[in-house]
Amino acid sequence: MATAGPLLNDIKISAKPVAGSFKAKFMDAYHRLKKELIADSESFSHTFESREWVSEMLDYNVPGGKLNRGLSVVDSLVLLRSGEELSEDELFLAFALGWCIEWLQAYFLILDDIMDDSHTRRGQPCWFRQPKVGLIAANDGILLRNHISRILKRHFHDKPYYQDLRELFDEVEYQTACGQMLDLITTPPGEVDLSKYVMDTYLRIVKYKTAYYSFYLPVACALYMSGEDDKSKFESAERILVQMGTYFQIQDDYLDCYGHPDVIGKVGTDIEDTKCSWLIVQAIARASPEQKSRLYNNYGRKDPACVAEVKKVYNELNLEKLFLDYESESYENFMSIINEEKSIELQQVLKLFLSKIYKRQK
Amino acid sequence: MATAGPLLNDIKISAKPVAGSFKAKFMDAYHRLKKELIADSESFSHTFESREWVSEMLDYNVPGGKLNRGLSVVDSLVLLRSGEELSEDELFLAFALGWCIEWLQAYFLILDDIMDDSHTRRGQPCWFRQPKVGLIAANDGILLRNHISRILKRHFHDKPYYQDLRELFDEVEYQTACGQMLDLITTPPGEVDLSKYVMDTYLRIVKYKTAYYSFYLPVACALYMSGEDDKSKFESAERILVQMGTYFQIQDDYLDCYGHPDVIGKVGTDIEDTKCSWLIVQAIARASPEQKSRLYNNYGRKDPACVAEVKKVYNELNLEKLFLDYESESYENFMSIINEEKSIELQQVLKLFLSKIYKRQK
Ligand SMILES: [Mg+2]
Ligand SMILES: [Mg+2]
Ligand SMILES: [Mg+2]
Ligand SMILES: [Mg+2]
Ligand SMILES: [Mg+2]
Ligand SMILES: [Mg+2]
Repeated sequence: MATAGPLLNDIKISAKPVAGSFKAKFMDAYHRLKKELIADSESFSHTFESREWVSEMLDYNVPGGKLNRGLSVVDSLVLLRSGEELSEDELFLAFALGWCIEWLQAYFLILDDIMDDSHTRRGQPCWFRQPKVGLIAANDGILLRNHISRILKRHFHDKPYYQDLRELFDEVEYQTACGQMLDLITTPPGEVDLSKYVMDTYLRIVKYKTAYYSFYLPVACALYMSGEDDKSKFESAERILVQMGTYFQIQDDYLDCYGHPDVIGKVGTDIEDTKCSWLIVQAIARASPEQKSRLYNNYGRKDPACVAEVKKVYNELNLEKLFLDYESESYENFMSIINEEKSIELQQVLKLFLSKIYKRQK
Repeated sequence: MATAGPLLNDIKISAKPVAGSFKAKFMDAYHRLKKELIADSESFSHTFESREWVSEMLDYNVPGGKLNRGLSVVDSLVLLRSGEELSEDELFLAFALGWCIEWLQAYFLILDDIMDDSHTRRGQPCWFRQPKVGLIAANDGILLRNHISRILKRHFHDKPYYQDLRELFDEVEYQTACGQMLDLITTPPGEVDLSKYVMDTYLRIVKYKTAYYSFYLPVACALYMSGEDDKSKFESAERILVQMGTYFQIQDDYLDCYGHPDVIGKVGTDIEDTKCSWLIVQAIARASPEQKSRLYNNYGRKDPACVAEVKKVYNELNLEKLFLDYESESYENFMSIINEEKSIELQQVLKLFLSKIYKRQK
């Protein structure tokens, strides 16, 4: 997620988004969690080498992203507690849950990069590209996954919502892994079959692979921490946030092609990488036989002339306008379903999320 | 683990080992669990393709081993309940826990084969060697891991020991992943440094990578199912079974070199594969400078002449006798610590495990 978007001031929320102000304390919490994991010798006795390995692996993979997912737990909790100040202990717990989400993401990204044979991630070589790492990275991903259970056990064992939290992380991990499976079997690395790139499949992949862990998980964590036990709140948060996550991914696909590299911080390569992107799915659905064959002949090739040809078809089909219309409609739609939500506090959380992503440029 | 060894009749146990008789019912339980996982649409809506993928992936990876780990849950439970018959429901639950262990093993083996660049597993090509699979196998491993949580949630959610069981599987998964890490950073694929092959490291790798999940986990599952809540029983089971798992791995390393290929069902390749085996660790500790340099020059090479040279050093150092002495001593040692255990039922379980592995030929 990007930082607060331009529409922030149009969406009335009772507390200012506070991500910025928590960043330093959030990093402190990372260092504490890391230290605890490495010192922890209850189930495993580390050697000097293994301690060093885990330390480097964590620093390389966990805290280097934008941290928006992790920080949105505390942001959400602040709004759910409207007004009531969080104690230092509660703040730390909200940070710890935020870090569990970042750990979960790091685990999936390490494995995703191996499976996609990727080269860079967050502006540095993928972890498995480090000469001394290689496929050992797969086990490092597993270690990150295991760290989540250990963090939850250490810090939440006595909370009444401990078991719910455990099952929440299980559910979301399973959804993400299933989304990956769907993605991998629809678009197997090295094989291209554009006829499989249809909207129904696209939406299913995005929902499971991205939306649950990026949008629903942070809010569900905050709801548990706030003591919520009304299942219907979780359900409406899930329904709306999974849709918002889908919208977020569609933006991501749009920006990959139409965003400014200086602003998004990278040059998009979805066309070269044969990605099942919203743009290609829309293009195939709308293309004439002649345009379709140009897409089939040029999609997924590194040659800049091929990329240009695909973009030409996108432009002929007016995909940029299609996206901008979709974006405005989505906004109206989100605001109306959010306003139907009975809890004002949850409304605030949902509006904060929307404000952070609506019309984002990066 | 092998089936009951030659010493079975020397070790008095109140119930005959029953693995054989449960095999068919155990397989029925597999089919039920598989069906449930594929039908389960609470958190993910399968497509036809994803259902087919999971079905094939499970059949290929989960039930093809010797199933001794999985079956030892029910075997242990029968002894812990001495005499009292198990209901059909209890039998199914013991099978389900047994399958969770087999699922855990399959998950680790898929990833281990990728990291070790292996070719065959259980007499067939490794899953990732299947042309349509490749590195998608990594995500399949993750799916298997997630299935364990789902099986536990579906069938044990209402049991008083549900949370203990969850944490047990977490602990053991973490121990196994840590053992893998230690193994991978001690003997990084493609790099050989025999000076790191020392007994202390060897024992630490074996303990975490193999012993916990193969020996302690099945008995701990059975203890929970039997309603045990005396922590000291778990602790003495852990202490003894982790040692037994170590003994089991040392046998494995011995048999790789000295076992009969017809009996063990494969031709050992630990020398060619630069494995950190008990034999090479003992050899390096005992070798003269001249023998050491022959080991350094020949270990980890595919050339049969090199393998023969390594075996020659092993024979000069009398490693076969060293192992046979260790084996007898271990037996005495195990019997004496087992007889110190206060619970007769737990004694029976431990003796059953010992009887299954002592002097095994495969
Ligand atoms: Mg990728
Ligand atoms: Mg991918
Ligand atoms: Mg993208
Ligand atoms: Mg291996
Ligand atoms: Mg290995
Ligand atoms: Mg072996």
